[in-house]
Amino acid sequence: MPRQVVNLSEKLTKFSERWSPRVIAEMNDYQFKLAKIQGEFVWHDHPDTDETFFVVSGSMCIRFEDGEVRLGQGDLYVVPKGVRHQPYAEEECHILLIEPRGVVNTGDAGGELQAPNDVWV
Amino acid sequence: MPRQVVNLSEKLTKFSERWSPRVIAEMNDYQFKLAKIQGEFVWHDHPDTDETFFVVSGSMCIRFEDGEVRLGQGDLYVVPKGVRHQPYAEEECHILLIEPRGVVNTGDAGGELQAPNDVWV
Repeated sequence: MPRQVVNLSEKLTKFSERWSPRVIAEMNDYQFKLAKIQGEFVWHDHPDTDETFFVVSGSMCIRFEDGEVRLGQGDLYVVPKGVRHQPYAEEECHILLIEPRGVVNTGDAGGELQAPNDVWV
Repeated sequence: MPRQVVNLSEKLTKFSERWSPRVIAEMNDYQFKLAKIQGEFVWHDHPDTDETFFVVSGSMCIRFEDGEVRLGQGDLYVVPKGVRHQPYAEEECHILLIEPRGVVNTGDAGGELQAPNDVWV
């Protein structure tokens, strides 16, 4: 009976840094990562993979070159691979990201918001 | 800006059948599926893939040959590939399953609870 039950709310109490995803579980070669976000992230894309956003609490926006989507608590959205996007949250928002292990948060945009991978909480 | 925002609670109002997963989104070759469960499922395993359970509301149990885990709202658990397990819920529980497209809910156990794949809601 390997692996542990992970409670999202409990894990969210264990870090406060924004734009700094924390791994909470792995499924095959995919990772589940919690993140706290506020303000504007960098425009970027992930050329090789889709990326799933699930809002645990709060609300956020994902801007695209041709529009935007607004996500509230309990909303799930999959950003297709190769689509440039910019996450944005007016107030702090807590999200669950699901994507393959090794995906860099800023894609190939880099910059000061690029976070290290494989940081567990 | 392809694909739509999916709200889990809203999608859960659209079906009532138990043990009958409904696809709500796809990420690469993975699917997100909502299910309503109550009672005992069949013992089975998935020899080729991990399987993620996330409890949206209610509580459930996953029995293993050497123990069990109990999951409540906001809990996430990954059943490792090849591990025999039996989901169980005393009262109706609403869950989000995440696993590769094409995984059969009963593994190779079959039986009357085997559900068709790729039924979207």
